[in-house]
Amino acid sequence: MDISELGEFALIKHLTEKINLKNPSTIKGVGDDAAVIVPAKEKKTLVTTDLLLEGIHFDLTYVPLKHLGYKAAVVNFSDIYAMNGQPRQITVSIGISTRFKVEDLDEFYSGILLACDKYGVDLVGGDTSAALTGLTISITCIGEAETPVYRNGAKETDLICISGNLGAAYMGLQLLEREKRVFAANPDSAQPDFKGKDYILERQLKPEARQDIIRLLAEKNILPTAMIDVSDGLSSDIMHICEQSHAGCRIYEDKIPIDYQTATMAEEFNMSLTTAALNGGEDYELLFTIPLADHEKVKDIEDIKIIGHITQAEAGLALVTRDGQEFTLKAQGWNSIS
Amino acid sequence: MDISELGEFALIKHLTEKINLKNPSTIKGVGDDAAVIVPAKEKKTLVTTDLLLEGIHFDLTYVPLKHLGYKAAVVNFSDIYAMNGQPRQITVSIGISTRFKVEDLDEFYSGILLACDKYGVDLVGGDTSAALTGLTISITCIGEAETPVYRNGAKETDLICISGNLGAAYMGLQLLEREKRVFAANPDSAQPDFKGKDYILERQLKPEARQDIIRLLAEKNILPTAMIDVSDGLSSDIMHICEQSHAGCRIYEDKIPIDYQTATMAEEFNMSLTTAALNGGEDYELLFTIPLADHEKVKDIEDIKIIGHITQAEAGLALVTRDGQEFTLKAQGWNSIS
Repeated sequence: MDISELGEFALIKHLTEKINLKNPSTIKGVGDDAAVIVPAKEKKTLVTTDLLLEGIHFDLTYVPLKHLGYKAAVVNFSDIYAMNGQPRQITVSIGISTRFKVEDLDEFYSGILLACDKYGVDLVGGDTSAALTGLTISITCIGEAETPVYRNGAKETDLICISGNLGAAYMGLQLLEREKRVFAANPDSAQPDFKGKDYILERQLKPEARQDIIRLLAEKNILPTAMIDVSDGLSSDIMHICEQSHAGCRIYEDKIPIDYQTATMAEEFNMSLTTAALNGGEDYELLFTIPLADHEKVKDIEDIKIIGHITQAEAGLALVTRDGQEFTLKAQGWNSIS
Repeated sequence: MDISELGEFALIKHLTEKINLKNPSTIKGVGDDAAVIVPAKEKKTLVTTDLLLEGIHFDLTYVPLKHLGYKAAVVNFSDIYAMNGQPRQITVSIGISTRFKVEDLDEFYSGILLACDKYGVDLVGGDTSAALTGLTISITCIGEAETPVYRNGAKETDLICISGNLGAAYMGLQLLEREKRVFAANPDSAQPDFKGKDYILERQLKPEARQDIIRLLAEKNILPTAMIDVSDGLSSDIMHICEQSHAGCRIYEDKIPIDYQTATMAEEFNMSLTTAALNGGEDYELLFTIPLADHEKVKDIEDIKIIGHITQAEAGLALVTRDGQEFTLKAQGWNSIS
């Protein structure tokens, strides 16, 4: 169905009528000039926002709209977890060209709502607009935290920890881009065989935010001194922590956790695995620092790896390679600007 | 200067280094995964968001970027006032094509920061992205209210009030569009003479939000039963109140406040003045209902006019014209979808 058949007000009603508010803090969701939230006592409010543009951040030739909605929501939740918080509400604004039908938006919103259900978040507002070209998505997430963790608290000797593994989302993207080129060159080619590559594809197309790590840290009574989520790549993100903490770091290449599928794919593409892990981005893992005294608490947690430690600022940002050489880490965003 | 010369991180630093945080509730602004706010005790948090796209919501051939920034911020503040709240923080996300230079963004942000200064709001975050075409702006505003006023509380016999006047922003837009056409047809034509048209141009290019009306209502101890800001036009906006309040209304054409410049311009364009007031939109005036018993309190306030009253739902949405005829109001958004 064409969106113009519905009109703006009916479209908003259609897209939002399936929303069930879950959080006691959500007093009023969609449908007024603003959403109304009762903040929990003794908690601080967190606000983060992301802009996603077709052709820059996503390619609809291989990204299903439902996955896109899911990912768009999850990357915002990830920013809230990176503050040691819990996401509670989101607003979703979209700009849509006439190429999109009501059914497309249904797919997109079903992904958003799936993510909201999984992470306990309420969709409370947004904006809907015609667009001259493509799809524009802007999401703002509101969360809460008793003790926010910033990027600026890392101290010399602190251990640098990372959850999960790095580089998988980037290798997933390389694979999808290759198959897109294959298909463009030969539209009659068979469906690509993605067997054994499901993990890296899922990391790219339907990433998860590390709610579980925040819970685990609280259970183990570990309060990170600094934290960030890995969206631009380990290099950029550790640089943010070091810069704001006025500190340096030593990262050990052989400690960086890499999944088997990521390694296989990098070999197939003849790419440097470490470059993928350092600069790939979109991992949405949590990168954090803890006092050296907390070493015992983390050393046996399977999904958290210690990859280095914080040094004096004068020591700079060092990567120690497998063969013992030392390089300076360079910040490199995901795109020149993204 | 080309934005690519700076890169993302330096650009963000450049755009945000002039920010002075004003609100005690703002604990952490730009520079981390999320902004941190300490909500005031006993107050509710309000969240509203707007997406503005070049070619749909604004035309840079006649809108200066500084004014655009100012307006983009103010229309969000207006939504917070329409909830009987005070705006406190905003996040600003922009998508920018290579056509824009660093100096353009400086202009845009100077408008945003001017609005923030005037209304006591802190710029606390955002996102910056490359875009394939044009300028994309997404703003989210966080506010607070002790007693939010919704759209759904209007009761039969309540008086319908409007601040300021209607239709001016729409006539300002008509004027700008005409001059654009004149210039397109004859690029050597003289600069247009806007003398005596400054008010309608300002209403279109640099509107204000009615912070003063919210203050006045509090001073006079008037709590509206329902409120909305006029962004789509009186017809649509009174319809939102009536629909959500399960009520009808009677609006009197001769009571609708219109500025002299608006009337003159409508005559020059041979347009219906009432249509401009009903469907023009972008007035950002406050439309609200109050109990009949509060009549004495508002009747002498110069900048608030009573334009009708709330009826039973069965009576529908009636416009009573100057010659006593009755029409049904039709909702008509600003664009088919905007």
